[in-house]
Formats: sequence, C-alpha cells, structure tokens
Amino acid sequence: MSLEYSSPLSIERRSFEIIEAQLGDIDIGPENKKILERVIHTTADFDYTENLKFSQDAAKLGIEALRNGAHIVTDTNMALAGVNKKTLKALGGDAHCFIAHPDVAGQAKARGVTRASVAVERACTLKYDLIFAVGNAPTALIRLDEMIKRKRVAPKLIIGVPVGFVNVVEAKELIMKSGVPYIVAAGNKGGSNVAAAICNALLYMVK
Amino acid sequence: MSLEYSSPLSIERRSFEIIEAQLGDIDIGPENKKILERVIHTTADFDYTENLKFSQDAAKLGIEALRNGAHIVTDTNMALAGVNKKTLKALGGDAHCFIAHPDVAGQAKARGVTRASVAVERACTLKYDLIFAVGNAPTALIRLDEMIKRKRVAPKLIIGVPVGFVNVVEAKELIMKSGVPYIVAAGNKGGSNVAAAICNALLYMVK
Repeated sequence: MSLEYSSPLSIERRSFEIIEAQLGDIDIGPENKKILERVIHTTADFDYTENLKFSQDAAKLGIEALRNGAHIVTDTNMALAGVNKKTLKALGGDAHCFIAHPDVAGQAKARGVTRASVAVERACTLKYDLIFAVGNAPTALIRLDEMIKRKRVAPKLIIGVPVGFVNVVEAKELIMKSGVPYIVAAGNKGGSNVAAAICNALLYMVK
Repeated sequence: MSLEYSSPLSIERRSFEIIEAQLGDIDIGPENKKILERVIHTTADFDYTENLKFSQDAAKLGIEALRNGAHIVTDTNMALAGVNKKTLKALGGDAHCFIAHPDVAGQAKARGVTRASVAVERACTLKYDLIFAVGNAPTALIRLDEMIKRKRVAPKLIIGVPVGFVNVVEAKELIMKSGVPYIVAAGNKGGSNVAAAICNALLYMVK
C-alpha cells in the first residue's frame, strides 16, 4: 500500500499546502495565519477562520515570551501531553498542569469549586513568566480573570479555547476584556487539542 | 462571580442537557447516542451527528470487551492522557501508547515509515483483547488494516477518528471494510480528543 510508505514530513507538508490553498488570502498577519493553519491542521475545522480572535500583537508577544523562557500552564493533562515540551525546554521553559494534583482535588471538593479553578490558583504561585493555555475548563478562565484583577498574576498571554455549552462563551468574553494579550476561540468550540496546537504554533515560530 | 461556584457535576449535567435538546430525536440506538453526545461535549461540533459511523453493535461489543478487561491502544500520548484510566483499570484493563518509545522512532526512521505505523506493529504483540483508538495518524489505521489481514491481530473494536487532509478519508474507508467492529468519524474530522471521548463514553456505559 503506497500510502503507508509516505514520509511523515511529506504528509505534514502536503496537509499544510491543502489548508493554505483552502484558506486563500486572508489578511490576519503571518503569525496569526500560522496559528490558524495549525489549529485547522489539528481539527480539520475551518470554522476557526471566523472563530479565532487575536488581541493586538498577541502572537508576537507570545513568541517573544517563549523566546525569553516563559513557562506554559495548561488546564488539562491532554493539553499538557500535546505541547511540544522538547522545543519548550530547549528555550528554557517548561509546561505545567496542576489539575491532577491531590491537594487540588481535595481543596476543590471542600470549597465546592472546580479542580480547574483551584489549579489556576496554584499556577499563579509559579515564579516564571507564564502563558496560560486553557482548552477545557471555562472556570479556569474565570478564576484566571479574577486573579489578574487582584494582581496575583500577570500572564504574558492567555490562550483561551475551552469547549462547551455552559459558561464557555462568557468566560472567553471576560478574557477578551481582561487587558491581557489573548488568543481566543470565540463561541463554543475549542479543546485541549486546540490549546496545544496554538502553543506549538507559537513555539515553532520562535526560531 | 456566581458562574465560578457552579459545581462541576452540575456543569456537566447541564452541558449534556443542552446537547440532548439540540440533537432531538435521532434514531441511532441508546449506546451510539451516548457516544455521539460525548463527542459533541468534547468538540462542540454537531457535524459529528452526520460523521460518526458505527458498525452493527459496535458500541455493545466495545462495552462488552471493556467489561471483560480489554486494553486500549492509542496512537498519541494526548489520547492516552484523555482516556479515563482509573475506570479502565478498575475493569482490569489498561491503556498503552507506543508512539514515544525510543525503539519506535529509530525503526520508523530506518524504514522511512511513520512512527504511528511502527507503534501499531508493537501494539499487535500485546497479549490482551485490544481496542484501538486512533485520533491522529491515518498511517496507524492503514498498518492496522494490514496487520488484521495478515491475522497478526484481531481487535475487538477500532475507534478510527484521525483528523486531517492526507490519506485520512482513505484510511477510514479501509477500516470500515476490514470486517472488524468500528466506530469511525467519516471525512476529515476527528482528533485525539475525539478518540479519548469515545473510549470514555464506552467506559461509562460498562456499569
């Protein structure tokens, strides 16, 4: 079966050619376009052409932060698994996810809040420049917005792409008004895969 | 902010109510409907209502296999991270992904094939009942189909939901003709998150 013996690199190159051809000329800047292409590569969903929202220079600021060793915080272990940690570590950064930490579960239960919300509080104690990548939990974004307002954290960038039907649209709108650079998938769509894809698109643009 | 203090369980319940209401009456059987609902919960993408294809009794056979201790093989660490391993292990199963194994990378390079393809060969040596969950690599499905034809493996179920534009549609069609029970997302869409969601939907129906 000839398909099988295609080289992995040529498959990836061909995929991006197909996506680029289908996108045609869109005027969102080269960095944002790279991000959009990688999100479509991950989802095969061209709705992101309309959904993805970038604050002014968000991609450039994210790339710069990663170049300077920023760490990435994800809200799920799936997103954590998807981030290219080899590339991130080569830049002096690392990736963190506190959702499965035993303390986090205990505290969340005791306080009747989500684990994602407690995990964000925990992440805000990290003494690094931080990029938050949220692909699942709107409550992570809601708590993050609160922590920003309380000056407990000043993220370099927020990747706000939780998926779902409850509080998701509202949480994304909070982030777009937070004053922090953002890349957000407006509406209900998103996911851990989308969060990781955006992190990786930024990482691959650092060089 | 009252949103934040919603209990996690009530958020999930409300999400599924919204999805169910939007789906209305669809006649695909209760097990398949549970799977579809969880995929939409993970993607917010109602296209799966059309895309998801189930072979006769695929969900029932998957549930039965998991009840009997079948193991799950994923093609990516993201899908592996998304599978509810606690529930799976409580049933006597486990989850495996060989993509990042050093031998696999070396062999793939030497043979000029994808790591996903070599990882499938490795998985076929496992001495358990197996469910394959492929959310990323069409070459995993293509190799799996070949291994089935050579009688090197007889999966209890194939979850075939790779995403992309190169070989993806063709690989899924191979699986739908393989004679093995399948749950496939026809077309270009899918993903590691979708693969994990289908595994979890099956796991939650075992009880």
